[in-house]
Amino acid sequence: MDKVNLTQKFSLINDHWSPKIVGELNESYVKVVKLKGEFVWHHHEKEDEMFFVIKGKLIIRFKDRDIKIEEGEFLIIPKGVEHLPVAEEEVCVMLIEPKSTLNTGNIKDERTVENLDRI
Amino acid sequence: MDKVNLTQKFSLINDHWSPKIVGELNESYVKVVKLKGEFVWHHHEKEDEMFFVIKGKLIIRFKDRDIKIEEGEFLIIPKGVEHLPVAEEEVCVMLIEPKSTLNTGNIKDERTVENLDRI
Repeated sequence: MDKVNLTQKFSLINDHWSPKIVGELNESYVKVVKLKGEFVWHHHEKEDEMFFVIKGKLIIRFKDRDIKIEEGEFLIIPKGVEHLPVAEEEVCVMLIEPKSTLNTGNIKDERTVENLDRI
Repeated sequence: MDKVNLTQKFSLINDHWSPKIVGELNESYVKVVKLKGEFVWHHHEKEDEMFFVIKGKLIIRFKDRDIKIEEGEFLIIPKGVEHLPVAEEEVCVMLIEPKSTLNTGNIKDERTVENLDRI
C-alpha cells in the first residue's frame, strides 16, 4: 500500500488519450490521462464515469450542451449518456470508472486502448 | 448532471469528521469531509476506501507505520486494514467508497454518521 502523487504520475505520461492505471478500489480503477484535441462521440453502456480535472480545462460536449470542467472540479457522466471530451489545450485528468470501462465506450477505433499500462 | 466544484463544497462544511455526499457513480459515493484531530481506530470489512487530500495534510496511521498524504496525493486503504486518520491541522479530503461504507467502519461511537447529508 503506497500513496500516489498525481503530479509525479502525470510527469510519466507523454501521450494523449491513453489512460494509465494508478490505483484500484473495489471494482474500479483510478486512472490518469492527458487529453488534447477532440476525442470521439461515445457512451458507456453499463458504466458511470468520473472526470476530475487536475490541471487545465476540459470541455465535455453533450448533444444538448457543453460543460466546461476546470481545476478542482469533477463531472460524473451517467451510463448511456453520449459525450465527447474536447481539450483546447492539454489537460490532466483523473478518471474513476469500473474495471470493465473501455475509453472509447461503444466505439472501436484507433484510439481504443484495450490493455492499459500501470504507472 | 452538474459539475462539482470542490472548493465551493468545502466552503459549506463547518464541522469535522462528518462526510457529505457530493456525487455518486456506479455503487459508490463521492464524499467530502473536513478532518481535524485524531479519529478512531477502525477497519472496513468489505470496502476499499480512497482518501484524496485536496487541502492540508493527513496522516493515516497503521499498526506498523504512518503514511502522510499531502495535497494532490491519494491513498487507497484495502478492506480489512486497521487504520487511524490523524489531522494535526484541518484537512479537506475527498473520499470515494461504496455506498455501504460507514465512516467508523466496524466501530460505533458518537462520531458514527449513519445518514449522510448531500451538499
